[in-house]
Amino acid sequence: MTRDAKTDNDNKGSDMHVLVTGAAGFLGQRLVRRLAEGSELSGKPLSRLTLIDQVEAEGPVDATFESVSRALDIASPGALDEVLDERPDVIFHLAAVVSSAAEADLDLGMTVNFDATRALLEGCRFRKLLETRLIMASSVAVYGGELPDVLDDMTGLTPQSSYGTQKAMSELLINDYSRRGLIDGRVLRLPTIVIRPGRPNAAASSFASSILREPLNGEEAICPVPTDLALFVMSPRKVVEALLHGAEVPGDAFGASRSLMLPGITVSVAGMLEVLREYGGDEALARVRHEPDARIAAIVASWPGRFENLRASRLGFEGDRDFHEIVEAFLDERG
Amino acid sequence: MTRDAKTDNDNKGSDMHVLVTGAAGFLGQRLVRRLAEGSELSGKPLSRLTLIDQVEAEGPVDATFESVSRALDIASPGALDEVLDERPDVIFHLAAVVSSAAEADLDLGMTVNFDATRALLEGCRFRKLLETRLIMASSVAVYGGELPDVLDDMTGLTPQSSYGTQKAMSELLINDYSRRGLIDGRVLRLPTIVIRPGRPNAAASSFASSILREPLNGEEAICPVPTDLALFVMSPRKVVEALLHGAEVPGDAFGASRSLMLPGITVSVAGMLEVLREYGGDEALARVRHEPDARIAAIVASWPGRFENLRASRLGFEGDRDFHEIVEAFLDERG
Ligand SMILES: NC(=O)c1ccc[n+]([C@@H]2O[C@H](COP(=O)([O-])OP(=O)(O)OC[C@H]3O[C@@H](n4cnc5c(N)ncnc54)[C@H](O)[C@@H]3O)[C@@H](O)[C@H]2O)c1
Ligand SMILES: NC(=O)c1ccc[n+]([C@@H]2O[C@H](COP(=O)([O-])OP(=O)(O)OC[C@H]3O[C@@H](n4cnc5c(N)ncnc54)[C@H](O)[C@@H]3O)[C@@H](O)[C@H]2O)c1
Repeated sequence: MTRDAKTDNDNKGSDMHVLVTGAAGFLGQRLVRRLAEGSELSGKPLSRLTLIDQVEAEGPVDATFESVSRALDIASPGALDEVLDERPDVIFHLAAVVSSAAEADLDLGMTVNFDATRALLEGCRFRKLLETRLIMASSVAVYGGELPDVLDDMTGLTPQSSYGTQKAMSELLINDYSRRGLIDGRVLRLPTIVIRPGRPNAAASSFASSILREPLNGEEAICPVPTDLALFVMSPRKVVEALLHGAEVPGDAFGASRSLMLPGITVSVAGMLEVLREYGGDEALARVRHEPDARIAAIVASWPGRFENLRASRLGFEGDRDFHEIVEAFLDERG
Repeated sequence: MTRDAKTDNDNKGSDMHVLVTGAAGFLGQRLVRRLAEGSELSGKPLSRLTLIDQVEAEGPVDATFESVSRALDIASPGALDEVLDERPDVIFHLAAVVSSAAEADLDLGMTVNFDATRALLEGCRFRKLLETRLIMASSVAVYGGELPDVLDDMTGLTPQSSYGTQKAMSELLINDYSRRGLIDGRVLRLPTIVIRPGRPNAAASSFASSILREPLNGEEAICPVPTDLALFVMSPRKVVEALLHGAEVPGDAFGASRSLMLPGITVSVAGMLEVLREYGGDEALARVRHEPDARIAAIVASWPGRFENLRASRLGFEGDRDFHEIVEAFLDERG
């Protein structure tokens, strides 16, 4: 134990070993690129990046540090043993089964979204990685049911999906392990991420990116919800910055809870379309076809649209300034 | 599956098989006696009572129904298989490791308070006990951290103990299994129970019973907290009635959440002592020695003292009228 404590202290002064689970995913890949660009975390140079995913994740190009990519199923017993033996300083835990898959297969969702998180915590506990900072991506899906119009840091979690349940359970566990000093955990609940690159998909939130992305690319898009609907959104760029910031805030600054909702911004669909017109003109706006879909509208309407999440701002997390900034970031990246 | 569905329907019209875990405990034994007195649940006669505890629980005397007591560890694999094969109609899940033990031994608490609850849910799911009503006793310990002065049904859970964490995780799971229609679950968060019979013990809440019980029995008691401290309390009698009511409310009446705080009453320590004087006179009051204990005072002050829990009342759960009623119930039972 004395030796372990010493190792921790030694690490403190020196380089950073960062582990990313779900590194082949949408956010994982962006995070990897961002880490390679910055080459440091908490003011310390990155020495090593370990990427974990069930498929082999692409490593950074031109990185100043060593990078290792391993294809493994984090839900299989002992999967993380070797990686944790290397005593990472920071773990970004992004691997997850998405909402629709977790709803379709309760066992799969429980195993990946909850049991694997627990195994990760246990692995850290067993190795006394007391100072390792673990950042988990949670979701707005932990909220649900009869919600107030404006949610705040004290609003209770009554998830209405198995995905939200599994994230909320993982949150509780990370909080307890952190309270006990077994790990230094942080949980960031992500708003709806717009504008995602790529194509429309089956997710209920798909339209929120699609109604900007496709028209700006000269293509048609379908808007399945009423335009007065409010969404709570954040750009992928700001989400990745928030993940990094989540690793940098001192643990005790979080106080009695390690979980918080990131500072998204509230925007109505009408507001989004207005900004689309500003950047793409009337012809872009005309590419959005309004085809109401009651099922999608009901799901999206059940997501909280307004937050007064003061803790996140107090801890220095930053959101997008406005929806213009989100569109500009997209255009900027698209080149 | 057709056969299972038929069995469920048959059961519906006929008798009740009730299973109680933790049946040898304080509440378990009171519940068993109350079930024997009433001999029915939801208007249907009890046909069978199965008692589970790690020690053999005493069964009811003079019961009109069959009663079986089994000593087993609910945390051991497959422990509940045989019992669930008998397809109980109602399960009161009371077995738990108490707060101090769960804090002292994280693994024990996780195994008994969470994993065994999950195994119970899985056992019901595997056997398609879709209509079995599962009532779990949760606790005020699910609350914690920076709380508002008055809590309500939407107040978030930020437990500050492993016990509270494990209860909160079990709550989430019962909610999700119920939402999916795999079980008909209900979670009742219990206030501090006063007046418990017996002797003072190591629990931080022990004084709350002791400062009434001992003086009314002609003995001395110690009050370790300031008298302006507010407690949220419920008599054992009303708690047991609430457990029964929890089995009788239709599942869909719960709405988006199966968890609720029972309607305790708020009383200050000064208020409790005033009622002590009314029933026991000045000589009883004089038997309470005030010996401040900062550790106990801090723990107890962290428990929420005031709730506006409208859902419980709307669903017909009843608390004690006032603290007089609580003292009278105690005197009544003591004989
Ligand atoms: N993108 C969003 O809008 C959003 C919103 C809220 C929360 N989140 C959360 O953020 C995290 C990352 O999201 P994303 O958008 O990058 O998702 P994604 O689906 O693109 O990435 C998740 C990655 O996890 C990997 N994975 C799944 N199961 C695994 C297993 N058993 N073993 C190893 N790897 C496994 C997948 O292969 C995938 O690459 C997730 O935890 C997600 O729940 C995302
Ligand atoms: N009494 C209170 O003030 C209070 C307050 C809030 C919640 N609760 C909850 O109410 C329930 C009952 O409380 P109680 O006061 O009767 O507690 P208790 O300790 O008297 O009874 C719990 C019973 O569970 C049994 N048990 C523990 N581990 C077991 C295992 N592995 N296998 C089988 N049996 C096991 C114990 O032997 C004991 O008989 C518990 O779930 C408790 O968490 C009680």
